Amino acid sequence: MPIHDMATACGEPGHAATDALDAALIAELGADIVTRSADIEPHYFTAYNEAPGARPRALVRPRSVDDVSRTLALCTKLQQPVVPQGGLTGLARGAVALGGEIVLSMERFAGIESIDAAAGTITVRAGTPLQVVQEAAEAAGFTFGVDLGARGSCQVGGAIATNAGGTRAIRYGVMREQVLGLEAVLADGTVVSSMSRVLKNNTGYDLKQLFIGSEGTLGIITRAVLRLRPKLAPPATAMCRVADYDAVVRLWDRMRAVPEVVSFEAMWPSFYQYVGRHTPDVTAPFAGEDGFAVLIECATSAPGGDAAQTLETCLADCFEAGLVDDAALATSERQARDMWLLREGLAIDALPNLINFDVSLPTGELGEFAQRCEAALRARWPDVVCLFFGHVGDGNIHIGASLAELDEALAEELDRTVYGVVQEMDGSISAEHGIGVLKRPYLGCTRSDAEIGMMRRLKAALDPQQLLNPGKVL
Amino acid sequence: MPIHDMATACGEPGHAATDALDAALIAELGADIVTRSADIEPHYFTAYNEAPGARPRALVRPRSVDDVSRTLALCTKLQQPVVPQGGLTGLARGAVALGGEIVLSMERFAGIESIDAAAGTITVRAGTPLQVVQEAAEAAGFTFGVDLGARGSCQVGGAIATNAGGTRAIRYGVMREQVLGLEAVLADGTVVSSMSRVLKNNTGYDLKQLFIGSEGTLGIITRAVLRLRPKLAPPATAMCRVADYDAVVRLWDRMRAVPEVVSFEAMWPSFYQYVGRHTPDVTAPFAGEDGFAVLIECATSAPGGDAAQTLETCLADCFEAGLVDDAALATSERQARDMWLLREGLAIDALPNLINFDVSLPTGELGEFAQRCEAALRARWPDVVCLFFGHVGDGNIHIGASLAELDEALAEELDRTVYGVVQEMDGSISAEHGIGVLKRPYLGCTRSDAEIGMMRRLKAALDPQQLLNPGKVL
Repeated sequence: MPIHDMATACGEPGHAATDALDAALIAELGADIVTRSADIEPHYFTAYNEAPGARPRALVRPRSVDDVSRTLALCTKLQQPVVPQGGLTGLARGAVALGGEIVLSMERFAGIESIDAAAGTITVRAGTPLQVVQEAAEAAGFTFGVDLGARGSCQVGGAIATNAGGTRAIRYGVMREQVLGLEAVLADGTVVSSMSRVLKNNTGYDLKQLFIGSEGTLGIITRAVLRLRPKLAPPATAMCRVADYDAVVRLWDRMRAVPEVVSFEAMWPSFYQYVGRHTPDVTAPFAGEDGFAVLIECATSAPGGDAAQTLETCLADCFEAGLVDDAALATSERQARDMWLLREGLAIDALPNLINFDVSLPTGELGEFAQRCEAALRARWPDVVCLFFGHVGDGNIHIGASLAELDEALAEELDRTVYGVVQEMDGSISAEHGIGVLKRPYLGCTRSDAEIGMMRRLKAALDPQQLLNPGKVL
Repeated sequence: MPIHDMATACGEPGHAATDALDAALIAELGADIVTRSADIEPHYFTAYNEAPGARPRALVRPRSVDDVSRTLALCTKLQQPVVPQGGLTGLARGAVALGGEIVLSMERFAGIESIDAAAGTITVRAGTPLQVVQEAAEAAGFTFGVDLGARGSCQVGGAIATNAGGTRAIRYGVMREQVLGLEAVLADGTVVSSMSRVLKNNTGYDLKQLFIGSEGTLGIITRAVLRLRPKLAPPATAMCRVADYDAVVRLWDRMRAVPEVVSFEAMWPSFYQYVGRHTPDVTAPFAGEDGFAVLIECATSAPGGDAAQTLETCLADCFEAGLVDDAALATSERQARDMWLLREGLAIDALPNLINFDVSLPTGELGEFAQRCEAALRARWPDVVCLFFGHVGDGNIHIGASLAELDEALAEELDRTVYGVVQEMDGSISAEHGIGVLKRPYLGCTRSDAEIGMMRRLKAALDPQQLLNPGKVL
């Protein structure tokens, strides 16, 4: 999609001011922690899949909670805006500077602090990659409840700050439901440590909830206590073909009662046909035609449990009931991976000028939504390519929309068209990707004036100078 | 426990002022909605298990969200404090007036608004009793995720406002994890309606989280969208005896991997012996002696699933492994109910001057906590009766402590002794009952100055005149 040249648009800060800022940061934190603006690698000001944005005034990479606290206390004194940064895998451009900010990257404050096997909890630092958390959980005999494509590069602090979702939400909930305790630093440098280690804790306001999903605008997350789940045996994966979206809903109604179901992912016909043709080295289990494809993954922690047997029995029942037209059970890890490659649909990234949407509506309404959304787009752009796919069981679908020619005005019109349908149907314009910069103009499609007013009150209460991630969310 | 005579302590408001207040409320809301102070039944100013407290200045019983909004707007204008009230089943005295407030009871704004079977959600009004929600869920082919003893009289709005826990938290989480959407009215009368109907919704701050568990001090909850779970077949229930708390933890480590487990409740030996002797018409499945008793309930939504078979197999394995000394599987609903009656332990209410505690610590630390807590109590009061029991799998236990003689100073000393041990071990002084009035002096045992400071900032942002449930929580 078209990228503003933020660096030019916002202007470089004056050298004198930047020199003074560097000096103040280095005096407070030491030269090891602070990188001067000119020396910052483009990685730190480039959002996922986009051209470089605004060069930050400085890069701070703390090694401790105290470093974070002192950075923010100094920034409050200097009225210096700060962008917190994790693994930069977000899709809403929430972790890059817009012009004039410093960037505070958590990458050096990483690692597992402890695991409590009896309680089933893991205590982690914000900069830890999600995959490291997952692997530590597995090594200790547990499973971590959230998984998503960016697991190798996203950081757990960022995943909490954006309340990441992913493909296991129907079983374990989103990131919010994994967080028992949290530590965050407020704009003024106050460390608010609520590192609760239990599922039940009703001692006053549950402060962590405010930091989860607020995209670094209310505080910077430093550590967390996360829930672990009983270890799942290797999963069983199947792809099935059903006639239409009604059949998807009926299949979901059956499958959600099966405790082994971890993922239930649907692909609309045009998406399935596209990825079936364009995913290298992968053969789709059955021809696309007009049906919907549903990927189901089952796994169990039960001693002696057999998720493959459960899945096979369920699908046989559904086939007999006329609910499923065709089904393929993966008989190797390779086959299961190929099914997931189709669903992840990276092939669609090759479409010209692709714009991705991430919306949610109650499961039963997604079929109508897709029809109305495609009709609205096609009425304006008869040649639009629009592909629907997603998690469905949790109400979340993604849309890939592509036009042969696109400029900024058209991109905005396309956004408005899709979000207009979401608004008409009372859905959410961001299911799991957050608001960041990209969806900020459309927040009002899902949230009322009263809600946005309350958000502003909270922002003013916790960050009165508007220093934390300015220009994001609100 | 000893009750202050609040009405006397706080003094009756002057007649002239009360008449003016009545007139203003009636002019705004109508005589049907407003009850004058003198006409209010004691029920509305009496906390569970206690003597009547302060008579409210007026009772308002709204029939609509608009009634709630207009009440609060008027109260803001008049600087009139308000106590929101649900079913009055709380154990922290959070729903009664302390002197000078009006009470706003949600009992008339009740009922199920809708059920979305495809999405698995139910939309309810705050005044609906929890049991009505549970029954509506069952009738629609679902199970509601939270259950607790007060189901028949507590209201769902109060259960959300206090983030109720209960006996199924290990399977479905606490009340917070059931709430997808919420509507609440701020102190100034602003209706903040965030009635999201999906599991994934990351559009700005998740405002509902602030109202959940804040005990009516930040807003008054009016409606909610709740998650429904696949319908569970009738459960299988067993009681087993294990040697010591270590064995309880090892048993939990096995049982949590079994997806059918809904409840895992432990009784310390002295508790089990006491309730075994004093619960009318119930015979304990095995003699008390020195072992711990564990109640396990299994249930499944899987088609053709057999929870009783699963439970029996698991217990046989545990018996063979030497982990369980004895086990009784309930063979009738009556037997299962009797096991629950023992665990619920209403028999201990007959102990003189009983004080109940509700604390949480990581599962692996509860054994040591109980030892240290009992030792600390016994060092001061050699004859104290202290009985430990609770949910354990979620880190939550209850303590019943009884002294033959008790006055206010001794009660406070007893509180401080128990909460002192909780604080030393970095636990929570309120797992599921909230803070209310009773635990307010001890909030600092679990929460730091920074946390309490942040709570105050939030309170000031949303209720600057401190009109909502004053004297509670903070």
